[in-house]
Amino acid sequence: MTTTVPASSSASWLPDAEATDAHRALREYVRELRDLSSAASLAGWDQQTKLPPKGQAARGRTLGAMSAMLHERRTSPEFDRLISALEDAAPNDPEARGARRGFDLSTKLPSDHVRAMAEASSAGYGAWDQARNADEFTIFLPHLERLLELSREQAELYGYESERYDALHDLYEEGSRAADIAPMFEALREPTNRLLDLQPEPDTSILERSWHKEGQERFGREVITRMGFDFDAGRLDETVHPFCSGVGQFDTRLTTRYEEHWLPCALFGTIHEAGHGMYEQAFDRLGLPATLGSAPGLGMHESQSRGFENVIGRSRPFWEFWYPRLQEVFPEATAGVSLDDFVRQINTAKRSLVRVEADELSYNLHLGVRFELERAMMNGDLAAKDLPEAWNAGFDKWFGITPPSDKFGVLQDVHWSSGSFGYFPTYTLGNVYAAQFAEVARLDLPNWDDLLRAGEYAPILAWFDEHVYRHGDAFTGREFVQRITGGPVDVAPLVRYLEDRFGQH
Amino acid sequence: MTTTVPASSSASWLPDAEATDAHRALREYVRELRDLSSAASLAGWDQQTKLPPKGQAARGRTLGAMSAMLHERRTSPEFDRLISALEDAAPNDPEARGARRGFDLSTKLPSDHVRAMAEASSAGYGAWDQARNADEFTIFLPHLERLLELSREQAELYGYESERYDALHDLYEEGSRAADIAPMFEALREPTNRLLDLQPEPDTSILERSWHKEGQERFGREVITRMGFDFDAGRLDETVHPFCSGVGQFDTRLTTRYEEHWLPCALFGTIHEAGHGMYEQAFDRLGLPATLGSAPGLGMHESQSRGFENVIGRSRPFWEFWYPRLQEVFPEATAGVSLDDFVRQINTAKRSLVRVEADELSYNLHLGVRFELERAMMNGDLAAKDLPEAWNAGFDKWFGITPPSDKFGVLQDVHWSSGSFGYFPTYTLGNVYAAQFAEVARLDLPNWDDLLRAGEYAPILAWFDEHVYRHGDAFTGREFVQRITGGPVDVAPLVRYLEDRFGQH
Repeated sequence: MTTTVPASSSASWLPDAEATDAHRALREYVRELRDLSSAASLAGWDQQTKLPPKGQAARGRTLGAMSAMLHERRTSPEFDRLISALEDAAPNDPEARGARRGFDLSTKLPSDHVRAMAEASSAGYGAWDQARNADEFTIFLPHLERLLELSREQAELYGYESERYDALHDLYEEGSRAADIAPMFEALREPTNRLLDLQPEPDTSILERSWHKEGQERFGREVITRMGFDFDAGRLDETVHPFCSGVGQFDTRLTTRYEEHWLPCALFGTIHEAGHGMYEQAFDRLGLPATLGSAPGLGMHESQSRGFENVIGRSRPFWEFWYPRLQEVFPEATAGVSLDDFVRQINTAKRSLVRVEADELSYNLHLGVRFELERAMMNGDLAAKDLPEAWNAGFDKWFGITPPSDKFGVLQDVHWSSGSFGYFPTYTLGNVYAAQFAEVARLDLPNWDDLLRAGEYAPILAWFDEHVYRHGDAFTGREFVQRITGGPVDVAPLVRYLEDRFGQH
Repeated sequence: MTTTVPASSSASWLPDAEATDAHRALREYVRELRDLSSAASLAGWDQQTKLPPKGQAARGRTLGAMSAMLHERRTSPEFDRLISALEDAAPNDPEARGARRGFDLSTKLPSDHVRAMAEASSAGYGAWDQARNADEFTIFLPHLERLLELSREQAELYGYESERYDALHDLYEEGSRAADIAPMFEALREPTNRLLDLQPEPDTSILERSWHKEGQERFGREVITRMGFDFDAGRLDETVHPFCSGVGQFDTRLTTRYEEHWLPCALFGTIHEAGHGMYEQAFDRLGLPATLGSAPGLGMHESQSRGFENVIGRSRPFWEFWYPRLQEVFPEATAGVSLDDFVRQINTAKRSLVRVEADELSYNLHLGVRFELERAMMNGDLAAKDLPEAWNAGFDKWFGITPPSDKFGVLQDVHWSSGSFGYFPTYTLGNVYAAQFAEVARLDLPNWDDLLRAGEYAPILAWFDEHVYRHGDAFTGREFVQRITGGPVDVAPLVRYLEDRFGQH
């Protein structure tokens, strides 16, 4: 299933043997930094999958000590010198650019600020968890105020051109700006609501049948192996909150959660994480240097996870191949269920209160609500104490419904409690990029649907190798879009895609 | 099942609140060092249990980079200063003593030597593996010569009083000397051979029946949980070569290997590793400072693993409690097998060629062979090229039999291939200590056998808490023996124990 794209003259980098000394020296430094940070990544993965409960406190200290040690090396004069040498030798070199960005982000925050943020996040997380359980926003309020204060300071330390929000959003999606994102969400609001109005009464009764865990795990592994996830360079384990971790070179780990009476949880969760995982694995498979072997941001990463999960994984042609196999593994749960019934139920869409349970169609509106509120808070237009009221007003604006209480409203997400402002829009950027890429890929691969019907993913992966993976983070998400589509980030392909999938009732 | 021994005035250390500033500062430094080295330990554990195959090379680099980073901190001027401060404030303090020993061992080897040794070990391991598979000693010979040369240099760098061997053996067992060990092995040779002559024709047919893996795992977990291994502060996983790893505070991990047609492999392997594990867990459970919370050497560690595996785990009273439960889990494999049959088969003893498959009785003789040879090689009395002949002569001296080929002789063990000379005697020291401790513990706990019959291990663990665990590495193995028995290291209790267990045929 693997495809190797040779490092051609149009690649973004030269192999070690042809690269300059300045390249090789920087690559070696970054390689060691990544080898060390692999131990920290592993400690994080293990904390969420294997660590015995009493080991939590010590693991927290280990992660803190590793972080401080890594910070020293990310801000060392030697690193600075190696980057400068490459900047001098090869102006605008993408390897130097990425390293410089990392160095600058690490050096701009004084260690006092880093420590204050870590403390506020830790306390904020605890208070948020308590507030959510008690459905009582005021428990979280003082922590949110503190986190906002520190995050605003952080934005000032990083610097920005037009508005403070951009400094933080840029951490997750380089070069993306609130002024570009706002119209994107606006352009999604009307068509999404129009499509939601068209949806039939939701019926997911098949998916709620009894799907035994052993079969779910076996089927999930079979699907992602065939899609291209390499289990010789990765793992799949269980956890409460699924994630994908690039633990080290040739070591990419997915996690998932099995619900015996809700098939989509593990099934689409596993495909989603495998989308992240195949992206990470590609850097090693294609031999990228350590200086380039990362995704440029969360939007690009989500374009892969949400692309494989939704664009591919919920499509009818995909299930033409897989549904007979699902029937073999689960003869009872699939009894009397046609392929059409199944495909219809995995594509159920409706207005709902909770983002993490939302379907593909309504998902972006949840982010629209959050983006407007965090932008207003960051720029000083909304006080933390007024957030619950603003949340409900926003929800009404985007969905036409109001949450019954804060637990199902403003308190539902973890992000703000750990000081992550500017993160939310990357989910929708992922959907936008995925739809833009799929339109081009379908032109390049006119037999796209037939490939899915045959369970053949190698040509699709090869397309991503060529256009995305082999470049690592040599370009930003926006630059990738420009290179691939010949135009700017554009919401129209996503709208067309959603109309195609959800407009045919 | 847990027992807490308060830090009484007779303990080897004071709690933080009552300790001096010099103690607290040193403890904090060592705590952070251990928190960081926890990430390296985890990476090692993961390498042998979870790591995807293609990730091996990068993991090797990660371990190397972590090791170099930790070496810097183990040899830092700051560490030296903190130790000196405590040495000045509290002469002969055991916390300063342990830290000074670690600092000295780390600083005495120049980094060139460390690198040369790492390279020779890595190449040596590969060559040994190849040589063993081909049953061809000459493949390994040049590597062994190089490893001997470097190890002799290492001994000179560390320094010693009477013979070179001692400098290396001291790494594994502080204060123990070849001149003390030689008579210990000699004293075991005659009684062991006499007892071996008494043994009936071996019959292990019951143990070779079909023991399903799931049952073995369930039963093993039940046994060690009841013995006192805390699964909230530890794990049990599968691996090829079983081990116990103290990954971090409240995080002790055991591994085992299941053989469906050889029950003792996982059963006694799991109990053995749990013996190591309960020792490690005790330091955290009893709240020892980081400066003391380790075993003082391999002999003490083996006294626990071999003590729980053999002295307790192969005794008849132990199986009076557990055999009915084993029958429940394995009704077919135990059909028609009496308790006496079972106990007899798990205590089968015979002369054999391979150490790792040897029984409790003959085990020490295997170490006797190795000790004499490595001592002679280290001290310059035996050349590497003459080793196979010397091995066969030695085996004849100790067992009266000769291996058919080097694969079942000189090439069977991994230790020398990684430059570990001076390690082997610690297995027998573990047996000697375990027998000495058991004699005293049985006097203190006259109902010892009844406790085992009732499956009650808490009083036994409490005895070890009081006499061993709560002192960490404040004393050496030899000092522990002196404190507990009132006398020196003595092979007589082990001989009495072996006569009791193997002399009644």
